[in-house]
Amino acid sequence: MPSEFRYERRVQFAETDLAGIVHFSTMFRYMEEAEHALWRSVGLTIAERDGDYGWPRLNAAMEFRSPLHFEDEFEVLVRIAALKTRTIQYEFVLRRGQTPIATGVISCICATKGPDGIMKATEIPAAISNQLAPFVKR
Amino acid sequence: MPSEFRYERRVQFAETDLAGIVHFSTMFRYMEEAEHALWRSVGLTIAERDGDYGWPRLNAAMEFRSPLHFEDEFEVLVRIAALKTRTIQYEFVLRRGQTPIATGVISCICATKGPDGIMKATEIPAAISNQLAPFVKR
Amino acid sequence: MPSEFRYERRVQFAETDLAGIVHFSTMFRYMEEAEHALWRSVGLTIAERDGDYGWPRLNAAMEFRSPLHFEDEFEVLVRIAALKTRTIQYEFVLRRGQTPIATGVISCICATKGPDGIMKATEIPAAISNQLAPFVKR
Amino acid sequence: MPSEFRYERRVQFAETDLAGIVHFSTMFRYMEEAEHALWRSVGLTIAERDGDYGWPRLNAAMEFRSPLHFEDEFEVLVRIAALKTRTIQYEFVLRRGQTPIATGVISCICATKGPDGIMKATEIPAAISNQLAPFVKR
Repeated sequence: MPSEFRYERRVQFAETDLAGIVHFSTMFRYMEEAEHALWRSVGLTIAERDGDYGWPRLNAAMEFRSPLHFEDEFEVLVRIAALKTRTIQYEFVLRRGQTPIATGVISCICATKGPDGIMKATEIPAAISNQLAPFVKR
Repeated sequence: MPSEFRYERRVQFAETDLAGIVHFSTMFRYMEEAEHALWRSVGLTIAERDGDYGWPRLNAAMEFRSPLHFEDEFEVLVRIAALKTRTIQYEFVLRRGQTPIATGVISCICATKGPDGIMKATEIPAAISNQLAPFVKR
Repeated sequence: MPSEFRYERRVQFAETDLAGIVHFSTMFRYMEEAEHALWRSVGLTIAERDGDYGWPRLNAAMEFRSPLHFEDEFEVLVRIAALKTRTIQYEFVLRRGQTPIATGVISCICATKGPDGIMKATEIPAAISNQLAPFVKR
Repeated sequence: MPSEFRYERRVQFAETDLAGIVHFSTMFRYMEEAEHALWRSVGLTIAERDGDYGWPRLNAAMEFRSPLHFEDEFEVLVRIAALKTRTIQYEFVLRRGQTPIATGVISCICATKGPDGIMKATEIPAAISNQLAPFVKR
C-alpha cells in the first residue's frame, strides 16, 4: 500500500482573484481538503458530530511554484511526515499534470474539551493513529 | 433616531474574482456583516458564546446594479422590513458614494436547541425585539 | 435527453460556520459551481481565458429548507428557466438524498468589453445558446 | 516614524468554522489585508487597475497560538523583513489585546506581463520601494 494519499480537485470560479489565479489562501484550503479526504479514506472524520476531539492547527506553510487558473484540474498528494503522541505533521504536493504547483506542510495537535470547556492537548487515540499509520512517510 | 443602520466597508483583494470584481456570493456576506453590526450597535450579538438562540436563514435575495472593485469603499444600509413573533426580515442597500451597487433582503427565524439537540423555531425574546424595534421600517 | 443537469458535491470543513452548518453565502457558490459544470458538460466555459464574453449576475435568490453539515454529500440540479436574447435564468434544487436543502435562482446577462473597456450587454452568441438549449425547462 | 504598520479588524461570522473559531486559511487573509492597508497608508496599491505590476506570492507561513472567535477585535502588525531588488518579505504579528494569536510571513515577487502575456519577475520600481522603505525592519 502506498504511503501517499491522492486527492483530485478542479478550480472553482469563486476561488480565483482579480489576478486571474487561485488566491493563495485557497491553496491552504486545498491542502486541508486533501487531509480530510485522507481521513475519510480510512473511515475516519476529523470532526465527528458532537465528538470529543478537535485538531487545532499549530502551523501551516506553503511554497508556490505555478499558479492555478479557473477550471484547472489538479491533484494534492498527502503524506504524514510525523505522527507523534499528540501531534500530526502532514506534507503536501500540489501539481497539475506534471507541473508543480505548490508544496506545503500543516501541523496539528489533538485536543479535547476539558470540564471547563477549554480545549486541551491530549494523546491521539490509538484507534486513530493506527488508521493513519499507513500514510506515515518511510 | 433614524430607522436605518449604516455599515462601512472596503473591498478586500481575496473578495474579487477573475472578472476583476467582487464575487456575487461575497455581496451576501456584506449584507450579513451589516446585520451583525446593527445588532452590536444596540449591545446585542447574533451568536452569544454558548448561547441559546440561533438565527437560521429562511431566504436571501439580491439584485445587482454595479460591480465593486478592489479597495472600493462602500456602505451598506440596513432596515428591518418586518419584525414578527419568530422572524426578522432585513432590507439592504449597498452603494458606493451615490452609485447604487445592489439591494437585497435576508429573512431569518429565531431558533433554539431542544433537549434532542435539534434546532426548533421559537419566539424572539422581548429583550432582543425591543432593542431591534428602532430599526423597523416605518 | 433530460433537461436537467446534476452536480454532486461534498461539504468541505472551511465552508461551515460556528453554527456547525454550511454558511448561506456558500450555498450560492454551490449553485454557481453547478452552473459552470453544466457549461463544461457541453464543452463550454463561462470564462474563456482572454475571452470576449462575461456573464455578470443580475440577481440571485435562495430559499433554505434544511442545513448542510461537514462531509454531507449532496446534489445540485440545474435547469434553465429562461434563455433569452441577452439573459439566462437558472433554477436550482439542492438536496441530500431525499431531503430538500434549498432552491434558488440566478440570472445573468451576456456582456462584452467595449473599446472603452466598459462591459456592455450584448446578444448571447448562437454557438452558446445552441449548446445550452437542451437544458431549457419545458 | 515607527517601522511597523498596524491594522485593526473584527472577526466576521462567515470567517468562523464549525469548531467555533476563525478558520486557519482566513488568518492568511488577515495578513494580506494588513499588507494592502500598509500600501494604502503610503498612497500605493498592490493592484492598480490596468496596472503593469503584479505581486505573486512565493511563500507564506503562520504559527498559531490562540484562536480568534466571532466578533473578536484584533490587530495585525506588519513589518518588512527584507526589501530586495525583486522581492519583499513581510512579517506579521496578530494579537487580541495582549493575547498573542499568531505570527506569520509572506514573501512575494514583483512581476510584470511580458509581450507574450506571461508574468515575469522584474525589479521593484523605485517609486514603490522608496515608499515602502520606512517599514523595513531595523
